[in-house]
Amino acid sequence: MVRNIKLTVAYDGTNYNGWQTQTNGIGIQEVIENAAARVMKQKIELTGSGRTDSGVHALGQVANFKADTRIEEQKIKIALNANLPHDISILDSVDVPLEFNSRFDAHDKTYMYQIYNSRVGNPFYRNYSTFVPSILDMGKMEEAFKLVVGTHDFRAFMAAGSQAKTTVRTVYSTRIEKEGNLIRLYVTGSGFLYNMVRIIAGTLIDVGKGLKEISCIENALESKERALLGQTAAPEGLFLLSVNYNKVL
Amino acid sequence: MVRNIKLTVAYDGTNYNGWQTQTNGIGIQEVIENAAARVMKQKIELTGSGRTDSGVHALGQVANFKADTRIEEQKIKIALNANLPHDISILDSVDVPLEFNSRFDAHDKTYMYQIYNSRVGNPFYRNYSTFVPSILDMGKMEEAFKLVVGTHDFRAFMAAGSQAKTTVRTVYSTRIEKEGNLIRLYVTGSGFLYNMVRIIAGTLIDVGKGLKEISCIENALESKERALLGQTAAPEGLFLLSVNYNKVL
Repeated sequence: MVRNIKLTVAYDGTNYNGWQTQTNGIGIQEVIENAAARVMKQKIELTGSGRTDSGVHALGQVANFKADTRIEEQKIKIALNANLPHDISILDSVDVPLEFNSRFDAHDKTYMYQIYNSRVGNPFYRNYSTFVPSILDMGKMEEAFKLVVGTHDFRAFMAAGSQAKTTVRTVYSTRIEKEGNLIRLYVTGSGFLYNMVRIIAGTLIDVGKGLKEISCIENALESKERALLGQTAAPEGLFLLSVNYNKVL
Repeated sequence: MVRNIKLTVAYDGTNYNGWQTQTNGIGIQEVIENAAARVMKQKIELTGSGRTDSGVHALGQVANFKADTRIEEQKIKIALNANLPHDISILDSVDVPLEFNSRFDAHDKTYMYQIYNSRVGNPFYRNYSTFVPSILDMGKMEEAFKLVVGTHDFRAFMAAGSQAKTTVRTVYSTRIEKEGNLIRLYVTGSGFLYNMVRIIAGTLIDVGKGLKEISCIENALESKERALLGQTAAPEGLFLLSVNYNKVL
């Protein structure tokens, strides 16, 4: 009997070319598909909630696949983990209705961007944060971060050359936290354009350094000019924390 | 004028063959020596407080070197970091008396051993902990851990084939902590035999699983038999946290 299995996945993106397989390297999706194919003894096609770039991490990526199998739902997790490298971990495996689609049914996603803010870099965070040795004004960063909340045309917050049917997105909430030398930016939204979170993070870093004004966010939302914003922050600071689905699964 | 510079060093040991250069790979010591030689424009010989094995990490390794230089002490740190890879970081550089020796003047060292204790492994801790999916009895582990405190002949807690003039060491204190899925073992002592902390950690894991009795520690201290203890725990869980010197430096 064909079932639809929803996976919650954590991965360290350091050694992969992102979620989706690229011509120049292996993607996390393919590694999981291959592991599932070995376990299920059939070809597996995995649908992820969305792509993550090379070097980007996930603590709660969601994906689903259809398979004809009798393995108990919780044992699928165990079997997959036994067939996966240690930098990819299946946190959960559950049966969902056949019509469930990780990508199209996603209601909102939360990302976290991590900044290591200290005079000296930390060897243990080099792949999990962007290193900023300058003093950052957290108050200004917080104020600027709040300005992205709401339904806006985020065209200015998108990597050049990327395609999207519409560039209107809704950001539900933002939050900034400091723990020791780590500054964490949390953002929850209906969806994000390509590089949107990293452009927000790069702009907030510039605001924190005093290189950009808080008002650059409003100006960019209005004028849609990418040039008003800061650089795209490095991928290794970005984590996909969770994907939420409204329906009970 | 020749000066003696004391460095405090953090490193992620994942990509190195330990502190000291081995025939089969590069050591952290050599990487720092090469960086210092570039900065100081002279040959540099670095003395570390002790070796760490391949895969072992440090948050506060101490080393010193002599050089004829006029660079301000705090600028040495900055110049070295600019010449070091991101997995090695100089946290501090200070002038010390010419007679100071990182190895022979060390009064005590503190190590931490990290265990990731959960049904499912965590991709972000794979290089920084040993993964134990079984349930562990922390109370028993704590009790066993306390038995190593004191001045003992730790011959049973030494890797086979290693050489040491004396196998008597003093352990000043032990502590076990749990934070989420991480169990951390802290041990402070006058010095440690080769693999001693990892043998203690491996034995405590076996005690926690119920595979060994708490009394195996006392029995091994008395009989000096390595076979009474558990396996040598994996290197990636071990961190050299700090080295203390009694003298004011």
